[in-house]
Amino acid sequence: MPRILFMAGHRWPDYATVLPRALEEAGVAAEVSPDLAPDAVDYIVYGPAGDPAASDFSVFPRLRAVLSLWAGVETIVANPSLTVPLTRMVDPGLTAGMVEYVTGHVLRHHLGMDAHIVNPEHHWANRAPPLASERPVAVLGLGALGAACATALVSLGFPVRGWSRTLRDVPGVACHHGPEGLEAALGGARIAVLLLPLTPGTENVMDARRLARLAPGAVLLNPGRGPLVDDTALLAALDSGALGHATLDTFRTEPLPREHPFWSHPKVTVTPHIASETRPATASRAIAENIARAEAGQPLLHLVDPERGY
Amino acid sequence: MPRILFMAGHRWPDYATVLPRALEEAGVAAEVSPDLAPDAVDYIVYGPAGDPAASDFSVFPRLRAVLSLWAGVETIVANPSLTVPLTRMVDPGLTAGMVEYVTGHVLRHHLGMDAHIVNPEHHWANRAPPLASERPVAVLGLGALGAACATALVSLGFPVRGWSRTLRDVPGVACHHGPEGLEAALGGARIAVLLLPLTPGTENVMDARRLARLAPGAVLLNPGRGPLVDDTALLAALDSGALGHATLDTFRTEPLPREHPFWSHPKVTVTPHIASETRPATASRAIAENIARAEAGQPLLHLVDPERGY
Ligand SMILES: NC(=O)c1ccc[n+]([C@@H]2O[C@H](COP(=O)([O-])OP(=O)(O)OC[C@H]3O[C@@H](n4cnc5c(N)ncnc54)[C@H](OP(=O)(O)O)[C@@H]3O)[C@@H](O)[C@H]2O)c1
Ligand SMILES: NC(=O)c1ccc[n+]([C@@H]2O[C@H](COP(=O)([O-])OP(=O)(O)OC[C@H]3O[C@@H](n4cnc5c(N)ncnc54)[C@H](OP(=O)(O)O)[C@@H]3O)[C@@H](O)[C@H]2O)c1
Repeated sequence: MPRILFMAGHRWPDYATVLPRALEEAGVAAEVSPDLAPDAVDYIVYGPAGDPAASDFSVFPRLRAVLSLWAGVETIVANPSLTVPLTRMVDPGLTAGMVEYVTGHVLRHHLGMDAHIVNPEHHWANRAPPLASERPVAVLGLGALGAACATALVSLGFPVRGWSRTLRDVPGVACHHGPEGLEAALGGARIAVLLLPLTPGTENVMDARRLARLAPGAVLLNPGRGPLVDDTALLAALDSGALGHATLDTFRTEPLPREHPFWSHPKVTVTPHIASETRPATASRAIAENIARAEAGQPLLHLVDPERGY
Repeated sequence: MPRILFMAGHRWPDYATVLPRALEEAGVAAEVSPDLAPDAVDYIVYGPAGDPAASDFSVFPRLRAVLSLWAGVETIVANPSLTVPLTRMVDPGLTAGMVEYVTGHVLRHHLGMDAHIVNPEHHWANRAPPLASERPVAVLGLGALGAACATALVSLGFPVRGWSRTLRDVPGVACHHGPEGLEAALGGARIAVLLLPLTPGTENVMDARRLARLAPGAVLLNPGRGPLVDDTALLAALDSGALGHATLDTFRTEPLPREHPFWSHPKVTVTPHIASETRPATASRAIAENIARAEAGQPLLHLVDPERGY
């Protein structure tokens, strides 16, 4: 009987019931616990609260795979003690939450809601905004999250351009790929949404030059990862008026330090890394399915490629 | 050759090119002008800026139909000088805009955006909101606008209940109708959206008792018409905490008077009747199609029933 170490201790109360049930429903007879002797561990469900670089996987002699509880794996993928397969989280609940966040904030900026939410002058400016069909949106990253967000924006009428490493086909989305494709995806976009993983290839992808490709007064949404954006270039573009606003959910340091200029910048909205969250019920089914596959000798789903970094 | 009076003078610049072109494309040879001798007028495109009660249709001896430029016809339907058919506006552009407004503000309240947009304490509260699937939404009115909004909310995962006068079938929406159906539609809803026309049967439909049917802390969105809501009951429900917020686009008096308590109420957002607007290009096609039908002796689309008031 395989033994699964739930190595995300603070989250155990959320999973103590649903994860064993999902395993049972997937036909896997397994023991799952936040507390197992290292030499008994076959699989790890991974989502530590503390310093992930401190995780030493070499102490688990029987370890067969690590299943990340989170979609982003940048803190573990390069861990030298990790020599078994690593999977990232693809969870319908996580995806649904991200679609809600991205659609909501895209519409917020499209509709110019902030001017109504905060309107101390009680100004009645009776002009409807343009339609979504007049606002090109760029979605960088067309993976589990980016493709779902792009699709939701298309169904609301936004002209959507997408960008990925390899060419993707997302119905209704003008898909671009590779370094050259980025210029076309960004060019003249009114809103840009970052849903890329953090890798050596994506760090600072939104630098001064790329920010300048967007339409004048454009809005940046970053629910991806903080280091995708050159913060200094972002602040400069906001201050010059080249960019209209940035709504940021992810930061180089989290929680965002109290003295960071983003907090009080009038053109920045900080959301505290709440764009989306792995949801225990649906995530447990994803984990159970992958462990069932491993036990049956089938290839794991959503394997991370250590070379690519995601 | 029929002659069409464009009786919404201030809007003429938006229609001067697109309306004649739409008529031509619909195969109608017609003269359209904001300025015609009354005894030459066959059709009126109607959307006055001033006092609609002042409109006297008895001066047009040849008048065959009045085509409203707006979806809401409450200011003209009871005009005793109106003895010819009246149509209301059903325009894909108007519908798209309303879907954007309603979806955007539903997501705004669902995600709790305001606490991030205005966050002077720089508070980092790292808890993701529940999923849309956990927030029942009630949509009152399942006409051209309500049905489209309900459908968009369903596709984002919200459990949606709808309400109309006659029973409607909107895929994915739990449809209720008639006075009894209203209790079921409202009961426990976290967000209620009003997209009813203003008629004697809908005035003050959201009174104290109906507001109390909603979930504690629920949010009311009113892009329908101001008098659908009992303003005094609304303010009382907000002040007692029974309701969490109201986002209002329509008011008993517009522009909303500067001294009105809605303007400075911390739980009210005022949007200045911009939820959606008739869009000249698409609306011109709707008008041209109806005039073509009238000229061909076919029944007009979107006829208003003076008895029902919409
Ligand atoms: N803020 C939050 O609450 C939150 C929650 C969950 C996730 N996230 C972030 O969202 C990210 C995306 O998640 P996901 O599940 O959608 O990941 P995914 O399925 O792995 O998709 C990643 C996408 O990025 C593209 N990409 C990667 N490197 C690239 C490069 N160098 N150039 C161009 N495109 C590149 C990939 O291209 P290919 O399609 O060609 O592979 C793919 O389309 C996560 O890594 C995480 O950082 C944030
Ligand atoms: N704020 C803005 O910018 C803006 C812009 C455009 C329109 N509007 C407002 O939106 C309203 C709706 O427009 P629409 O084009 O969707 O109208 P519509 O197609 O005529 O639909 C009206 C809906 O309300 C229902 N209804 C009417 N009386 C009712 C009653 N007594 N009890 C229960 N249901 C009742 C109708 O029921 P049945 O289906 O049984 O007929 C129908 O489902 C307009 O009248 C206007 O006031 C606002």
